[in-house]
Amino acid sequence: MTPFFDIAFRDTLTRLIHWRRDVRAFRKDPVPDDILRRCLELAHHAPSVGYSQPWRFIRVQDPERMERVIASFERANAEALAMTADEDKGLYARLKLEGLQDAPVQLAVFCDEKTRKGRGLGALTMPETRAYSVVCAIHTLWLTLRSHGLGMGWVSILEPEEVAKACDAPDNWRFIAWLCIGWPEKEESPVPELEKAGWESRLPFDEVWKTL
Amino acid sequence: MTPFFDIAFRDTLTRLIHWRRDVRAFRKDPVPDDILRRCLELAHHAPSVGYSQPWRFIRVQDPERMERVIASFERANAEALAMTADEDKGLYARLKLEGLQDAPVQLAVFCDEKTRKGRGLGALTMPETRAYSVVCAIHTLWLTLRSHGLGMGWVSILEPEEVAKACDAPDNWRFIAWLCIGWPEKEESPVPELEKAGWESRLPFDEVWKTL
Repeated sequence: MTPFFDIAFRDTLTRLIHWRRDVRAFRKDPVPDDILRRCLELAHHAPSVGYSQPWRFIRVQDPERMERVIASFERANAEALAMTADEDKGLYARLKLEGLQDAPVQLAVFCDEKTRKGRGLGALTMPETRAYSVVCAIHTLWLTLRSHGLGMGWVSILEPEEVAKACDAPDNWRFIAWLCIGWPEKEESPVPELEKAGWESRLPFDEVWKTL
Repeated sequence: MTPFFDIAFRDTLTRLIHWRRDVRAFRKDPVPDDILRRCLELAHHAPSVGYSQPWRFIRVQDPERMERVIASFERANAEALAMTADEDKGLYARLKLEGLQDAPVQLAVFCDEKTRKGRGLGALTMPETRAYSVVCAIHTLWLTLRSHGLGMGWVSILEPEEVAKACDAPDNWRFIAWLCIGWPEKEESPVPELEKAGWESRLPFDEVWKTL
């Protein structure tokens, strides 16, 4: 019963990984609930330290909560622009960095740092692995959404405490990511937006890898 | 030219996600270099904050370095066993938690916290997103290895500073994960080892998800 993964599947998986993008421009069309749920259920099958499953997803629809999050982005982004080197400021200001106002699905993702699930296994010397487990769930969500033609963007230009308050998150929940999800407005591309915009280029593979 | 992902691909991707496992028992057979490299090149296409690509992979083959890492695991694991509740100690001690001595490929993964790539974009209020980017690369590696029939195990029962020293990691590199990679010894299963062993069970999906 063990599934076999053939060359055709691996080729398509390669294309999925190459064509996954951080999407910032979305059409307004709704995302079917069943697709969103199916992708989140797959995210729930991500690896987690000690099988702790510490990911907590909140879909935010309430307009007042969204306003607080958008205001947080605007403050954090103004601060980031101010900190950007003078010669980069013009380009930075032109980048579209989020789909907070466009994407039909807005998700806040937290890590339950005090979950008893997993009984602490694997997290004693490296408690940060709980947050890393949540990131594995987020990346699973990203790939599965893309396999349905949906785009996702990860917004990190936010004040974590302010977002946690806007979501009434318990004290033991760490804010990990804000995700904007919807149908991409622009043509798809295997080239990251920040590369197209001239902000950054891909590192040669041999610079990230060595043997000792 | 945009790739289209059909139902057959999505079904197989679902099986890949369900059957990915944290593998701790490996056959000694070598892993072909070209497969390992292809999977790492796909990991290098993971999302990263500001396109910073902060992942750094070191394949450790030197026996003295491996001995230091294994000794670190043994200390951290003894400490973890001591901290485990009395009623769980017997089960904890019986769990096989790593393939440090078996797996033919041993990888240390770091995050370059001071990389200039990405010019800091997206990481001002949440610098931890650099480490999260590395985790996205690790999870990409996990899924692609599995699509070749290879298994991977993530070891976190380690002392991060000791592993960094064993790998001569620069001061600005943060240790993220130790990965054991090889051909799984045991039969594959969609059920996590820790569930089979009676350590933990899957949370109902509706406990990790809500709308506000």
